Amino acid sequence: MRVAVDAMGGDNAPVIEVEGAVVAAREYGIPITLVGDTDRLSQELAKHNVQGLDISIHHASEVVGMHDAASDAVRRKKDSSIRVAYELVKDGVADAVVSAGNSGATMAAGMFVLKRIKGIERPAIAQIFPTLRGKTLVLDVGGNVDCKPIHLVQFAIMGEVYARHVMGVERPKIGLLSNGEEDSKGNELTRDTNAILKDISFDYRGYVEGRDIFYGMVDVVVCDGFVGNVVLKLSEGLAEAIGKMLKEEIVKSVVSKLGYLLVRKAFKSFKKKVDYAEYGGAPLLGINGVAMICHGGSNVKAIKNAIHFAHEYARKGVNQRLVEKLENDFVAYMQRDGVKEVAAG
Amino acid sequence: MRVAVDAMGGDNAPVIEVEGAVVAAREYGIPITLVGDTDRLSQELAKHNVQGLDISIHHASEVVGMHDAASDAVRRKKDSSIRVAYELVKDGVADAVVSAGNSGATMAAGMFVLKRIKGIERPAIAQIFPTLRGKTLVLDVGGNVDCKPIHLVQFAIMGEVYARHVMGVERPKIGLLSNGEEDSKGNELTRDTNAILKDISFDYRGYVEGRDIFYGMVDVVVCDGFVGNVVLKLSEGLAEAIGKMLKEEIVKSVVSKLGYLLVRKAFKSFKKKVDYAEYGGAPLLGINGVAMICHGGSNVKAIKNAIHFAHEYARKGVNQRLVEKLENDFVAYMQRDGVKEVAAG
Repeated sequence: MRVAVDAMGGDNAPVIEVEGAVVAAREYGIPITLVGDTDRLSQELAKHNVQGLDISIHHASEVVGMHDAASDAVRRKKDSSIRVAYELVKDGVADAVVSAGNSGATMAAGMFVLKRIKGIERPAIAQIFPTLRGKTLVLDVGGNVDCKPIHLVQFAIMGEVYARHVMGVERPKIGLLSNGEEDSKGNELTRDTNAILKDISFDYRGYVEGRDIFYGMVDVVVCDGFVGNVVLKLSEGLAEAIGKMLKEEIVKSVVSKLGYLLVRKAFKSFKKKVDYAEYGGAPLLGINGVAMICHGGSNVKAIKNAIHFAHEYARKGVNQRLVEKLENDFVAYMQRDGVKEVAAG
Repeated sequence: MRVAVDAMGGDNAPVIEVEGAVVAAREYGIPITLVGDTDRLSQELAKHNVQGLDISIHHASEVVGMHDAASDAVRRKKDSSIRVAYELVKDGVADAVVSAGNSGATMAAGMFVLKRIKGIERPAIAQIFPTLRGKTLVLDVGGNVDCKPIHLVQFAIMGEVYARHVMGVERPKIGLLSNGEEDSKGNELTRDTNAILKDISFDYRGYVEGRDIFYGMVDVVVCDGFVGNVVLKLSEGLAEAIGKMLKEEIVKSVVSKLGYLLVRKAFKSFKKKVDYAEYGGAPLLGINGVAMICHGGSNVKAIKNAIHFAHEYARKGVNQRLVEKLENDFVAYMQRDGVKEVAAG
């Protein structure tokens, strides 16, 4: 199982990508192909001791920038590192893609080159959130706005399969994000989705509220990509703001500054617990292949972990499980009377 | 300017409501009418020194419970404390309502008894969030799901008038919550709303993201009530979860426990900064009158502050300003070619 790393996409490419790949190859023995400008990558790779590691370079002459319009750039830049990385998967040379580049382009290129899994209308980006009880997967955070119920139902199924087979949750609990717990709450989209999810054979717990995410009430939280993106950025922003406000108060007095020296270790282990780098990247679910989308500003650890999780995702044949789940529980269900109409919104 | 306090609605009613009223009357000299069961309220009031304070009791024999269906309860329970409180405003006996009861019922009763302001189709609940730069008002957080652009535009106008005249922001900056800053982002609803807001004469800053709320990038953040409710509950839940996770780490060692004693004061002033009780309640905007909706579990300080802000809101004639703003900037604009169609979604 080989992982193709788009080595040119991130904010600090290719320095971080190359180092992350070296560490992942060393720590987990994962074979890796770095995709990007050969000269630049050879030069960067030469800075590391790569003896005994299976790291190759595959040339790609173009790069999709952070501000390029995603689908346009993917179509136009035929030799871009992200597109070439997916081509390696398509050609059977690699089994998974990791990128810290333009996430819209990573999504668009995945759909363009590898196509969608049969039965999935819209691939989704799933983000792992740290919670009081462990981890919760939230999807979609990838910009699937104006969803129909059918899309959210498919997100739920993809999240269930990912949580079960990659995150190792035996019987994942699924929740639908809403503005209240009662079935009477929600909007048109969630009410129709709620009705369908109750009939799918998995552990569906109904509506969950914003606060439930961090209490870890369920393993998978489903929402449309507009709401998911607000949730993701709000959480990042609030956590940062709390940190800054606390710091402002602490530096106000010598006593509290001294106290901070003593609690610093506790702060650090807290930070480690909620560090996005621990989770590496967000899986792109629903394409015929494996892809992990990393933060543009990812550090070495984040890239390393993303490569590790991408490898696990590919190794465990999660997409095959997803195809089976769709065939067994979803296709038949969708053929029941009236379901199609509700699902289409 | 007299404030009618629904003294029976909150989780700890009427104990907290009565004490909050006494403190507000003492601290700000605000005349108050407590609405609810006369015997119960007299008994509670007798526990306080009310000499020189203008606090009266107005009888109401019924209470809307936290789990009652809002609009149904309001219609059915004609003598409920929340409905009677609004009747006092309608009859000119009081000028504002404060309630820690069922917020759906507080909203429904307000619309039912006082009716909407001309030009406002849906009243909204606005919540103040503490930010790195001060405060930001987010609306709607009150459950106006499935909005049309016209509703969000009206929320924006109400928010700007409230921020200007009650929060004292000279030229409030308005933002529309979205999944990215570029105009190409957003969903159908926000894109149409964005186009209209650009043409209204106020300081509209375009799309803002989830993280911008806590950075205080704008003074007023507009969203539909589904998204607003997720934002509100997510923020509460995340702040609590961070507190709990930090505490878990701190109690793990004697050194950090000792350190905590020294930073405790900093933690406390931080907590005070972000304490919901400082803001009292959330204004219900768009009805012909003034109402503040408090958390069911409000403490005395929250009730006191809500009474104070409700009094300010009434005293400053904010609704009159709102009517003027609607007439001057909005009615004419809405008559332009094509605007009505876009606004109607």
